[in-house]
Order: sequence, then C-alpha cells, then structure tokens
Amino acid sequence: MRLARLATTRGPRPVLADGNDWVEIDDPFAPIPVPTGVRHPRSGARLLAPVRPQVVLGMAHNGAPGDRDRPRQAFLKSPRTVVGPGETIVMDDELGRVNVECELAVVIRRPCRHLTAGEVASAILGYTTGNDVTAVDQIALDEKMTQSKHGDGFTPLGPWIETGPPPDGVGLTVRVNGEVVATGNTDGLAWSVTEQLVYLTRYLTLGPGDVVLTGAPGTFAAVEPGDVAEVSLDGGDPLTNPVVARGGAR
Amino acid sequence: MRLARLATTRGPRPVLADGNDWVEIDDPFAPIPVPTGVRHPRSGARLLAPVRPQVVLGMAHNGAPGDRDRPRQAFLKSPRTVVGPGETIVMDDELGRVNVECELAVVIRRPCRHLTAGEVASAILGYTTGNDVTAVDQIALDEKMTQSKHGDGFTPLGPWIETGPPPDGVGLTVRVNGEVVATGNTDGLAWSVTEQLVYLTRYLTLGPGDVVLTGAPGTFAAVEPGDVAEVSLDGGDPLTNPVVARGGAR
Repeated sequence: MRLARLATTRGPRPVLADGNDWVEIDDPFAPIPVPTGVRHPRSGARLLAPVRPQVVLGMAHNGAPGDRDRPRQAFLKSPRTVVGPGETIVMDDELGRVNVECELAVVIRRPCRHLTAGEVASAILGYTTGNDVTAVDQIALDEKMTQSKHGDGFTPLGPWIETGPPPDGVGLTVRVNGEVVATGNTDGLAWSVTEQLVYLTRYLTLGPGDVVLTGAPGTFAAVEPGDVAEVSLDGGDPLTNPVVARGGAR
Repeated sequence: MRLARLATTRGPRPVLADGNDWVEIDDPFAPIPVPTGVRHPRSGARLLAPVRPQVVLGMAHNGAPGDRDRPRQAFLKSPRTVVGPGETIVMDDELGRVNVECELAVVIRRPCRHLTAGEVASAILGYTTGNDVTAVDQIALDEKMTQSKHGDGFTPLGPWIETGPPPDGVGLTVRVNGEVVATGNTDGLAWSVTEQLVYLTRYLTLGPGDVVLTGAPGTFAAVEPGDVAEVSLDGGDPLTNPVVARGGAR
C-alpha cells in the first residue's frame, strides 16, 4: 500500500494510491485505512511531505561498517525542517559546505518504547525517501549537531510511504542536476533498522508519524544554491528539491 | 496576563486567568486573545502543560559565568517528553543518576528566524517554569544528549505562562520532598535570554509554542523514584512532579 499527503483546496489530506487516483482516507495509522470516497487523479496532484512527525531522529556515524565499533549515537532534527517534494532547501550564509544525504526513512506507526527486535516490524508504518541535509562544516563547531542539521528545508521526505517494514538491501541514489553523484545500499549501514529502533526506543518514546533517518552509506554530495537535488530508493520515484540561497537569490 | 491549558470534558482548552476563573480563549498566540465565554473556577481546575511545542531547545553548559568562554551549543528535546503539573517523571533502569533542573522556559509567539537583539522581545509570548530533567551519567556516553534528555516526563512545563518577555534576575528554586535543595538566579546564566534567541534563530526557525529551556545556574538536584520534585520561579506557584520508576514501582 502506498500512502501520501496531498494538498487539496480543503487543506492537506492523507491519501492512498488506488490505480490512477489518490483516494482520501481518515487515518493513515489505522490497521486498514478507511477511504472517505473523495478521489484525486494522480497526475497533477501536489504531494506534501507524507507525514508530519513530532520527532525526527537521525543515526550519527552509521554510514560505514567501521562505524559499528563506535558508540551508537542519535540526533534529533526539528520537525520544522521537514518539507515535501519540490520544496526548497535553503542555504544560509556562513553555514559552509552543505551536503544532501540519501537515506531510508522509517515511519513509525504506533506509540513505542523499549521495543524488542521481534516487535520492530509491527511498530513500523512504512518507509520513504529521506534527504538528511547537513551543514557538515558546523559539526566540528557543535558536536550536538544543532547548528548543522536545522536549516529551512533540511529534511525533505517523500514522495510517499510504502507500507510495511523496509526490505533488506535497499539501493540509494543521489543525483545533482540530473547526474548520479553517489550510490549506496542500506546493507552498508553499520546498524540495521531493527538494531536502530531497539536502541532508540531504549531512550525515547516514539509515536505515530515519527521518522528515523537510518544513515547515509556513502550516499551524500555537496550542493550549492541553484542545484537541484534528487534522492531515490531502488529506482523508485525521486524526491526532488531545489537548493536556494536565503532570500531566494541563486 | 496569565495563560494556561486546561483539561475539560471537551478536551484540552487554552485559557487565561480572570479573577477566580480560567476563561477559555480561541488562540493563545493572538495579540489579544478572544474569550469564548466559557469559564472554569480556578480552584479544582486541572492544568496541563501550558503549550504543546513542536520544538524544545535547551542551552548546553549555560549555567555558570565560565561557560561563556565555551562555544555556544544547544540540544533538542523531543516534544513527547513534555508533561504538565502533577504528571510523572519516569526513571528507566540503567539510566544512572537523574537530575531535576529548574530553568526559566521561554515560549515563542510567532515564526522567527535570524532574530536581532531588538526583535527578541516581540518574538516571545511569555515564560513559564521548566524542569529540564537529565540523566547526567549518559552525557559521557552520548555527548549529543539524546540518551540523557528523553525519558518519559523529562520536560515538565508550567503551571502557566506569564505573558511578555521575562524580567532580568528571576530567582529559581528546586525543592525535593518539600525541602529546598538548590537555588539560583537567571543572572547567573552565561548567555542571556536575548543572546540565546539571537544565537538559536541563526540556525533554526522557531514558531508559535516552541520552548527554550534557558539553562540551570546551579539549580539542579538528584532524584530517586518516590521523590516529589518542585521547581519554581521567584516564589511563584511551584511546578510539582512525582518521580517514579518504570512500571510504576517506587
């Protein structure tokens, strides 16, 4: 099942894909979402970020097998950084180098705490593409990553959620201005999705719509204002976001 | 003006204090909140956390004048850790020592980014008491503070918001089981509220209801399950929260 959020004349609405339409639903977190009967043709529909999380977590240094020897650490991103397909990533002056990062983003279905490995699958609503934009020069100044992770539009998500736990070995691709600049695979993550959720829920309660950015196994690239960043999972539809300078100048 | 959120039979409602009543209002962020006409006697009313923030920020190492020589750093707390008066602070096993911390909590009124010092006052809705509960032994394991700051109930706020920017020199008091165990004053913060908001909005967009925990100038104390923590500003009404072990055992 494919879930999304659609801009409609009545405001944002959760929808599911049905043939050539998006069909509005009451509750995307229900075991079986109930259609309201309102349909929108998929062509021309404007998709928003597929969820509005309260909590966005990213795994730090999880992109290479050697990272498994380091202590596990996670960081929070403000949900105000979340944007959807086509929205802009804003580069502020003085941030230094900014990377886009293609990651598998896991969406949580229900309140969860102290998950066991066996409980992880049932806690996951689905997965989508995440772009964990990072002002990498700031990390040396602020290891808490508050300065590096919070520019406007620094967490593009979408275009939609594929329900169910993610398969193993999801390919990740970064394109800048149409050219492939980095590729990787979730098999290259130091800690698996299951290990991450067991770790994270030892320390935090997660809930419906929360998002875990699972790490970038080499799937990052520097961008500049004027660039267009595209990240995608395994040949799926890309999540495309233009990069702009603050003030809109390119 | 004093703003709060009240548990009512119709769900949580924003209210303002009027004599011996709480009066429901439409929008606590409006320049002049409009009463709906529904009144609740203040005696017996159950207060909730006075805001539901999207972003909760805390200033790291901001509690002593010497901290001014260190780089400014902030951390995010999950909004799922926010609780109101009387709700429990849950201590998980294996977290180690847990401190309660009395802090001035600033509540944001409007979207703001790149604030100048002169713009800070107009960006503030008001202030309340914050208890920035911290599992301090975890900081050595995770300098990003995700492990230390996120237990259930680790961010008590309340009991209400006094509108307007906070005055200088607010006294802070921590009581455990009725005994005063720590006192301090916001004059002891390394970076002032204005300096903090200028710094933070250089890196993040804040918006209505977001909360900044401004730092604990010596105003912390260790707690154990079974304790009752009280934090208060300048002799105002305390924000009281029992500490429990996970599972409810004391």
